[in-house]
Amino acid sequence: MKHRRNFFKLLLSIIIPTLYFKKVKSDLVVSDFEKKAGFRSYGLPSKFEKIFRWIISNPNYSGNGVSYSPLSKLAGSITPNGLHFERHHYGVPVKNPNEYNLQIESLDGKKVKYSIDILREYNLKTIKTFIECGGNSNVLYNKSPVKTSVDYIHGLFSISEWTGIPLDIFLSKLITDYKKNKNIWIEFSSFDKGTYNISLPIKVLKKNSLLALYQNGEPIRPEQGYPLRLIIPGWEGSTHVKWLNKIKFRYGPAYTRNETSRYTDLLTSGKSRQYSFLMGLKSIITSPTFGSIVKQGQVLISGLAWSGSSLIKKVEVSTDGGISWQNAKINGTNKTFVRFNYNFKWNGNAVIIQSRCIDNKNKIQPSRKDVIKRLGKNAYYHFNGITSWKIKKNGQVSHVYN
Amino acid sequence: MKHRRNFFKLLLSIIIPTLYFKKVKSDLVVSDFEKKAGFRSYGLPSKFEKIFRWIISNPNYSGNGVSYSPLSKLAGSITPNGLHFERHHYGVPVKNPNEYNLQIESLDGKKVKYSIDILREYNLKTIKTFIECGGNSNVLYNKSPVKTSVDYIHGLFSISEWTGIPLDIFLSKLITDYKKNKNIWIEFSSFDKGTYNISLPIKVLKKNSLLALYQNGEPIRPEQGYPLRLIIPGWEGSTHVKWLNKIKFRYGPAYTRNETSRYTDLLTSGKSRQYSFLMGLKSIITSPTFGSIVKQGQVLISGLAWSGSSLIKKVEVSTDGGISWQNAKINGTNKTFVRFNYNFKWNGNAVIIQSRCIDNKNKIQPSRKDVIKRLGKNAYYHFNGITSWKIKKNGQVSHVYN
Repeated sequence: MKHRRNFFKLLLSIIIPTLYFKKVKSDLVVSDFEKKAGFRSYGLPSKFEKIFRWIISNPNYSGNGVSYSPLSKLAGSITPNGLHFERHHYGVPVKNPNEYNLQIESLDGKKVKYSIDILREYNLKTIKTFIECGGNSNVLYNKSPVKTSVDYIHGLFSISEWTGIPLDIFLSKLITDYKKNKNIWIEFSSFDKGTYNISLPIKVLKKNSLLALYQNGEPIRPEQGYPLRLIIPGWEGSTHVKWLNKIKFRYGPAYTRNETSRYTDLLTSGKSRQYSFLMGLKSIITSPTFGSIVKQGQVLISGLAWSGSSLIKKVEVSTDGGISWQNAKINGTNKTFVRFNYNFKWNGNAVIIQSRCIDNKNKIQPSRKDVIKRLGKNAYYHFNGITSWKIKKNGQVSHVYN
Repeated sequence: MKHRRNFFKLLLSIIIPTLYFKKVKSDLVVSDFEKKAGFRSYGLPSKFEKIFRWIISNPNYSGNGVSYSPLSKLAGSITPNGLHFERHHYGVPVKNPNEYNLQIESLDGKKVKYSIDILREYNLKTIKTFIECGGNSNVLYNKSPVKTSVDYIHGLFSISEWTGIPLDIFLSKLITDYKKNKNIWIEFSSFDKGTYNISLPIKVLKKNSLLALYQNGEPIRPEQGYPLRLIIPGWEGSTHVKWLNKIKFRYGPAYTRNETSRYTDLLTSGKSRQYSFLMGLKSIITSPTFGSIVKQGQVLISGLAWSGSSLIKKVEVSTDGGISWQNAKINGTNKTFVRFNYNFKWNGNAVIIQSRCIDNKNKIQPSRKDVIKRLGKNAYYHFNGITSWKIKKNGQVSHVYN
């Protein structure tokens, strides 16, 4: 299968140095009532914290592009809803929930519709999980390191608490009939302008998947798929269909654009690797990063580690370019994602800092070279190698290859 | 000790029916860049979801009042930062973090100062916990039920993931000297206009307490104590000192305004109960509530349960006014807080619905009558009894006493 480059790659390589990669600051309109009361009906961060998503958008198509979570400013594990990364192909559709229905189509063509009011009365379940875009970190395939921070390199990654209807329970009547046939696939479609759709094998029902109505406690926001989004813990971002309004059972895959030309890996053999689904074992340092000025003495090296297919057992940090590795502190083990912290006493000499994680199967996060070796020189998606940062003598931090 | 009523009570009883209890809607200013890009640097909820904090403010003192979390609109357990409840006495102070210091004063009067940059380099820890205002739910002491929703009755309760420096580690050098003396207290002060302060016994160091810098991943917001807040899991809201800038060791309590005239319970004996600290075992139904129109058939009864001093073992729901109780589904047991869900098949007859929780010591949440019996008729704080809601034949829901 021929692998066609979409313009996402073009965007990343061309638009960044232009005006489109610029800081944007939001401010709430404060009503007269709020001013008088001295309270706000919906809060925002301190004006002293320049915290916002970085936006890269296609100048020819508004709503086509990405926004990045500012990982360098975040701690703990939750990503606030206003800062969750976005990857839209055709902008954010607006739908009045009263005019919304979820349609299920069975193999014999029968269609059933569910209103949002009906969906909200189901027994809901809550799952805390990450979403990572398949294209996250792909500048690490570049020949040279990039002059930018973790926000842009790894910021297509966010963690939320999602609440919704377990997919297997919702489709349980249909599953009974279908579970004998392994060639059953399910196509999930969106009501955005491009009618985003993707087909997934029947095993998606076993993955703790949710038809999510809420994100971090409140109804899902427009840019995250309001009013309904498919959540599949550990699977590639492109499978978490936003603005979901159709679920259709079918025999075999649908070979939609989003499972053929996009999110596939063109191998050196000329063939494309499809249906990766599970995101790799990966860790990143979120702080310090490009833009930080590190001071001598106590330095907190903090970051995140995750895996789509296993559990994180430990995270190690190197402060000598990978010669030796020390255990970082993590909040418990055997989790699909963790925040790690490591106290580094910096003596002022230039050093290279790195992190790597080890899973419950004793698999170690690969080096950058190993990823390129495996996926080839044409690779664009699914980068999960080790990232290296140099702290210079003057305290400045830059991305390097090691 | 004489118990003086602060005007908080006045506010609650008088201002609610006035203009000050009005809906306020926030909207982001969208910059030209954002419009062109089709992306937002910081997101907000859908305009179709009227989701905001209800505000009650003292007309004579801007910034004196409360805002309530809209619990009826929330699911899962996290409260988004923009919707966390507030209780301010003197408004929200603005502080440039570059001009901020945390001062620690030891018993011998020695003072040490820490900048925000230094604090952020400590090894940080993350804790997910609730904060409940001591005055939450206190309209249930009223003689008659109130004509309003769970948002106003129980909305001084929110749950967040806090990240910060463990208090015991931070003060560890001082603790070594002090731990033999049980009469050591620690006074925590704020830089707000009223210099809010409260003294707490030395045991606060054993409570998993944090000097929190981050809330739900991002730097704490102004109205939640930016840049530093004391977090003591399970303790009364008033001990979670916001805008914290001074910690002072002392012999015995300081008897500040916030530990004498406020947050104490005037008992029928004429004496006041001080230093309750631990919030009681409690559960509330968040949906359906006043304002809901319940339809015949499947109804999701959802709510929250928590305890400041024990772990939640189970939550039960009654749909016949407390005659019989059924187990609700909770996300795991032995937690300090849980979301519970119960599927109720409503046949259209008028019913009274209630929830109650049972902790790991087999203690059951008390009835409203039992709380009043224990705390007396003058009680104002620390209500943790069962709340009753009537679903009428027409599907309307109202708060009732049962």
